[in-house]
Amino acid sequence: MKLREIVQESDTKAGRAFDSFILFLIISSIIALTFETLPDLSPAVKRAFYIFEVVTVILFTIEYVLRIATSSRKRNYIFSFYGLIDLVAILPFYLSVGFDLRAARVLRLFRIFRILKIARYNRALARFGKAMSYAKEEAMIFLFATVILLYLSAVGIYYFEGETQPEHFGSIVHSFWWSLATLTTVGYGDVYPVTVGGKLFTFFILMCGLCIVAVPAGIVAAHLSKVVEDEERQEE
Amino acid sequence: MKLREIVQESDTKAGRAFDSFILFLIISSIIALTFETLPDLSPAVKRAFYIFEVVTVILFTIEYVLRIATSSRKRNYIFSFYGLIDLVAILPFYLSVGFDLRAARVLRLFRIFRILKIARYNRALARFGKAMSYAKEEAMIFLFATVILLYLSAVGIYYFEGETQPEHFGSIVHSFWWSLATLTTVGYGDVYPVTVGGKLFTFFILMCGLCIVAVPAGIVAAHLSKVVEDEERQEE
Amino acid sequence: MKLREIVQESDTKAGRAFDSFILFLIISSIIALTFETLPDLSPAVKRAFYIFEVVTVILFTIEYVLRIATSSRKRNYIFSFYGLIDLVAILPFYLSVGFDLRAARVLRLFRIFRILKIARYNRALARFGKAMSYAKEEAMIFLFATVILLYLSAVGIYYFEGETQPEHFGSIVHSFWWSLATLTTVGYGDVYPVTVGGKLFTFFILMCGLCIVAVPAGIVAAHLSKVVEDEERQEE
Amino acid sequence: MKLREIVQESDTKAGRAFDSFILFLIISSIIALTFETLPDLSPAVKRAFYIFEVVTVILFTIEYVLRIATSSRKRNYIFSFYGLIDLVAILPFYLSVGFDLRAARVLRLFRIFRILKIARYNRALARFGKAMSYAKEEAMIFLFATVILLYLSAVGIYYFEGETQPEHFGSIVHSFWWSLATLTTVGYGDVYPVTVGGKLFTFFILMCGLCIVAVPAGIVAAHLSKVVEDEERQEE
Repeated sequence: MKLREIVQESDTKAGRAFDSFILFLIISSIIALTFETLPDLSPAVKRAFYIFEVVTVILFTIEYVLRIATSSRKRNYIFSFYGLIDLVAILPFYLSVGFDLRAARVLRLFRIFRILKIARYNRALARFGKAMSYAKEEAMIFLFATVILLYLSAVGIYYFEGETQPEHFGSIVHSFWWSLATLTTVGYGDVYPVTVGGKLFTFFILMCGLCIVAVPAGIVAAHLSKVVEDEERQEE
Repeated sequence: MKLREIVQESDTKAGRAFDSFILFLIISSIIALTFETLPDLSPAVKRAFYIFEVVTVILFTIEYVLRIATSSRKRNYIFSFYGLIDLVAILPFYLSVGFDLRAARVLRLFRIFRILKIARYNRALARFGKAMSYAKEEAMIFLFATVILLYLSAVGIYYFEGETQPEHFGSIVHSFWWSLATLTTVGYGDVYPVTVGGKLFTFFILMCGLCIVAVPAGIVAAHLSKVVEDEERQEE
Repeated sequence: MKLREIVQESDTKAGRAFDSFILFLIISSIIALTFETLPDLSPAVKRAFYIFEVVTVILFTIEYVLRIATSSRKRNYIFSFYGLIDLVAILPFYLSVGFDLRAARVLRLFRIFRILKIARYNRALARFGKAMSYAKEEAMIFLFATVILLYLSAVGIYYFEGETQPEHFGSIVHSFWWSLATLTTVGYGDVYPVTVGGKLFTFFILMCGLCIVAVPAGIVAAHLSKVVEDEERQEE
Repeated sequence: MKLREIVQESDTKAGRAFDSFILFLIISSIIALTFETLPDLSPAVKRAFYIFEVVTVILFTIEYVLRIATSSRKRNYIFSFYGLIDLVAILPFYLSVGFDLRAARVLRLFRIFRILKIARYNRALARFGKAMSYAKEEAMIFLFATVILLYLSAVGIYYFEGETQPEHFGSIVHSFWWSLATLTTVGYGDVYPVTVGGKLFTFFILMCGLCIVAVPAGIVAAHLSKVVEDEERQEE
């Protein structure tokens, strides 16, 4: 079948053209979605965005139907990773039609998951996903250690700063925000310790944090190098 | 003995159920402890938290007594890492009963060390601890280098900014806070140099700092990979 | 030919002197360019900077002409990396003569690309370029993953903070600035979430971000080590 | 000779006692130096600090004289790394006696170089120095790349923000402070771009910066692991 080759494969000229067109549609759809949220758009521009959105969804729906129609194992495709993403890319539009404005706004934001459709066409992203899945176990270890360190530092700073700055460190729950900004070294500067005890505590917690927080990046980097090496060996 | 198997081992169904129950108790106890510190709680909620705390401590005390009773080497358990943590998890409650409010508040905060009880049930945390103990020697090297760099930068910035901003850089002791926030790249923004000399000094100190401060994360990452590899080899 | 040896090679004493003179000219030219932008310069100083610039450009032009004249494959040199940079180093001056002040200002800034002329004389920079070109493929992977993470976090924070802080998170486009400052852990502190939802979202996005954003540094470091090792082996 | 063994060697009991005493003297001298700078000290405390300083310098002078006296190659010791540091540790005191207050204050700050005397007694610090000296060549590469990136980003942000925020980005020289705080991810928040062009430029420069700025830490970590491994192998 001609249609099957165009939709499912990318060896023929027509297949590549189909892929390129869908990729172009995804990217322009995401760009539209981004600029649509700008405040103070004129009604004409808003209308243009809406029409573009309707056209996009119709084309994605046709793509989705074609993929099901030309698939030899329909059920497998529908419940596959890409099948679900293709559905999520169009569903928010249809769901938001019936709802009132506010709920619709949230639903429409879910359209950004269209961005994941790019992974089908981008080898680099696929590799990154592979490296991440290899690093999963170590990442879990890190996640546990980081969350516990974040928690312990929230408790500590609550004890030292709680009474001096009740608006920022009024409870362990409040203090968690400081822990996050400090241990990740973001340091917005909206909350910081002012007592001598709190500053000394920050010193100790940062000395520990430096050993923990940047660890996962090192792990992912190591696995990424391995994935690239393996693929290069296979190509030879 | 049936009881011994339930408490000490996790091969039988009852043993696993006991472990799961204690783990659930630890986590809910920590969550309660966290939200208990929220300001403006109604007396009813405060009372509920207190009752939950009493129940928790009683259950942890029973667990502790059972662990001693079913242990073949009682003394070993009591002075082991987990034995001491099991004690620390309940002791603050009993101690805080007799004291006045303020001292009690501090003592009750020590209950957070219950979080370390999780390590008994979590393989990921155990692995992290292992990697950390391997990296201990290198971590010491880093600690020395970092503390000396922090100190030298505090002295330097005190010299450059001390007269211009006496409220922030009034002494080497005061300047240390800037060193910490800068070299860890947290950069809260509450203190920063304003003189040309201070800014140039920041440039030099950050060029050195970049080579030192992120080093331990790389070391821990390397050891963590080794620990995971070793364990995978043993399992095969 | 004597002239050819002086300009093209650096084995003879005259050749090394020529190289040193050009390098000195590049560096002093960049320093002049930097301090020229200082506000409140007296007309005399401005005039001195202008005269120095004219002399520099004349000397660079002579160098450029000599390099073409003494090159055996003239066309190859003109369109080579260094040939183009040699041209870019003088072109902005000639172009800015005819234009009005504002356009000239932009053109004159392009003179900073003279800095790349240093690469011809600096082995360290050449090595760095080599390591970067090896890491290109992995860097692409990272770039994709980072941009997508930046985008997803901009969408998320727009949803959580858009209504509370419309001046900072008024659209996905606006929110991108926060994503950038947060995921790179710069954290200027001009924008930060204030709602509970926004703070929780920041927690999740930073946990992901820590695994991604610092990865490329690890990759470049690994390749840099390889380049240095390879060159050392070749020298033996 | 008995004295020679005590001062120069640390195998005998007396030798170890001498070393411990000097180490104790160094550390307490640095602590005194630190707290001496605190403002609002009472005259009595100031006097106590001064007396302690005089005693310390006398003892260090005796140590210095003893080390020269007991050294078999006097000239070698005087111009060795430790010899010069031993001199620098006492010289500022003698020099500051004759001078007026302000110059003396600067000279006295140089006493902090006493901290380097610790390296003689600390194996961890010695190892760190070794790893740093191995990483020297790669560190040079990084230094070049970082300085050029810092410079290029200063030029770029000057172009984008110079007119909007002349107080912060009034010249390339001024803009350098922003480059430093941003590329090292410190992000104090005293200066940040506000124009769309400046923010986009920050995005591009940070994407490059992430690949460069954290690199040296990875390099030092790799060399540190090697140094520790080598030493462990030698000990076996």
